[in-house]
Amino acid sequence: MRHDPVHDLIERTLGGERVPLARAISEVENDAPGAIAILDACFGRSGRAYRVGITGPPGAGKSTLVARLAQEYRRLGETVAIVAVDPTSPFSGGALLGDRVRMGELAGDEGVFIRSMATRGSLGGLAVHTAQVCDVLDAAGFGRILIETVGVGQSELEVAQTADTTVVVLVPESGDAVQAMKAGLMEIGDLFVINKADREGADRAAFAVRSALELRPVRSPWETPVLQTVAAKGTGVADLVAGLEGHLEYLRRHGGLEHRRRQRLEQRLRDLLRDQLWQALLGRVPESEWKASVEALVERRATPHQVALRIAGAAREATGSKR
Amino acid sequence: MRHDPVHDLIERTLGGERVPLARAISEVENDAPGAIAILDACFGRSGRAYRVGITGPPGAGKSTLVARLAQEYRRLGETVAIVAVDPTSPFSGGALLGDRVRMGELAGDEGVFIRSMATRGSLGGLAVHTAQVCDVLDAAGFGRILIETVGVGQSELEVAQTADTTVVVLVPESGDAVQAMKAGLMEIGDLFVINKADREGADRAAFAVRSALELRPVRSPWETPVLQTVAAKGTGVADLVAGLEGHLEYLRRHGGLEHRRRQRLEQRLRDLLRDQLWQALLGRVPESEWKASVEALVERRATPHQVALRIAGAAREATGSKR
Repeated sequence: MRHDPVHDLIERTLGGERVPLARAISEVENDAPGAIAILDACFGRSGRAYRVGITGPPGAGKSTLVARLAQEYRRLGETVAIVAVDPTSPFSGGALLGDRVRMGELAGDEGVFIRSMATRGSLGGLAVHTAQVCDVLDAAGFGRILIETVGVGQSELEVAQTADTTVVVLVPESGDAVQAMKAGLMEIGDLFVINKADREGADRAAFAVRSALELRPVRSPWETPVLQTVAAKGTGVADLVAGLEGHLEYLRRHGGLEHRRRQRLEQRLRDLLRDQLWQALLGRVPESEWKASVEALVERRATPHQVALRIAGAAREATGSKR
Repeated sequence: MRHDPVHDLIERTLGGERVPLARAISEVENDAPGAIAILDACFGRSGRAYRVGITGPPGAGKSTLVARLAQEYRRLGETVAIVAVDPTSPFSGGALLGDRVRMGELAGDEGVFIRSMATRGSLGGLAVHTAQVCDVLDAAGFGRILIETVGVGQSELEVAQTADTTVVVLVPESGDAVQAMKAGLMEIGDLFVINKADREGADRAAFAVRSALELRPVRSPWETPVLQTVAAKGTGVADLVAGLEGHLEYLRRHGGLEHRRRQRLEQRLRDLLRDQLWQALLGRVPESEWKASVEALVERRATPHQVALRIAGAAREATGSKR
């Protein structure tokens, strides 16, 4: 038992080795056979890292900002892991490209680890997988984990919210705060950043965000900062790090950290159960029955509700007879 | 049986009455007791409407464009339903506001029906509910259904893809097609629109989108149009309608319509089953057990995987003993 390869992989990952870490993450991301053992081993050792979600519309300069954040954290002596959650874009190669750009600045630093995760269109799966990968990074000893999402849709917001703190990045042109409100961003941001603030309209954008924040029905003692950065030049990045650490401190002092982490774990348990139920069902429905059911729908011989009931019932029968 | 209120509601909805239609949709959206009967009745009568999904980043002017599309379709004698899928934004009131703006232009026209749907954060639930609401509108006799999403995340793309045709709306400033590629938009668009094309950079943006489209690995005989509109002035809207009808014609001629609709129904069956499995599980797990499980996670006494296994197992036991 002691010398099986997965056990070895876990030991070396927890010991801080980078190559096994990368492999362990791949196992987790692909639901490979070793994934459960890795996750079970890492979960108990996680909970020490500060996880920061960074979200905002495409083009807000999140990747550059995240790279700068990592540099600043390194300057302060923290180890940093970056998890970039990119949509599956088989032909754009966005994920790889982003990594390469960043690699130039952070390459060769053992205190930084960068990982891209592709979204694979599986409902719920993305937030679960992100949280799992963060557990591995957490257990491997990284002090700060930056989770970057590309889009600003429902799933991306859920990913950003697996973190302890959520940063919303906007640009002066997204100025009209109404757009951010529409996208559901105002509710989830603990800190707001107007990036590319050397472009026209940054002050106006910051003001609009502040005004929109005033409308939030739930007030807390936390005064949500609205910062301005020029990530490409590094301007304002130290202030952002200070703001992040301030929020961590605030969460600790007010019991918010424990509360949030409890909520996150509960949500994660929900997502995981959903996935497991679905996988279990799939394993019990024969391909032929599935095809016949879809055909019945296409020809309007049955309704989706009727077909779903039949499939779920048949799957239950199958389990019953096995037990 | 004949004279129960739900039956009456269904009859009047299918008969084309607007007030019962609005109520039927509310029942469906809220999973109210009458929902299944309504859906079962409507599903068999659906499949006639042409469903168009309209997506793109916040601020692209989608709402205005959709209102103009509706006007143009009305001019051509079609009846139009608009389904606007907005994120839950309890304090922004975005959904209501959007409706009011549009109402000004389309009010009093019995041939147009506008409905906002709030996203309620339930995984998968949104695409299912959108498809269900469209079934009701379809069965109620609307010839064209325009489904508008606010964001461009995973869930929003899934919503847009419940349609027969997907339109991606960009603005000159989103110019850099790389951003659209990153957001996963290039893969799903059947037509692209550069809206607000009276602003600088429209030609450049259109060119960038065309170049990006060339990179798509899967080629089809459909030449994806990249149109320019100024929705606020109505410019280019007639061309967009022509493009949409052209795509419908193309889909019909090449068997793509049937193929897509089959895929959509299959995806919908998957989503519905997921939801049902989850609801069934929830009903079998006592509140106290759920809380104890979350507590075990918080204290790291158990891992998510272990807890999920235990809950799923206990739920199965519960079913077993009942049967």
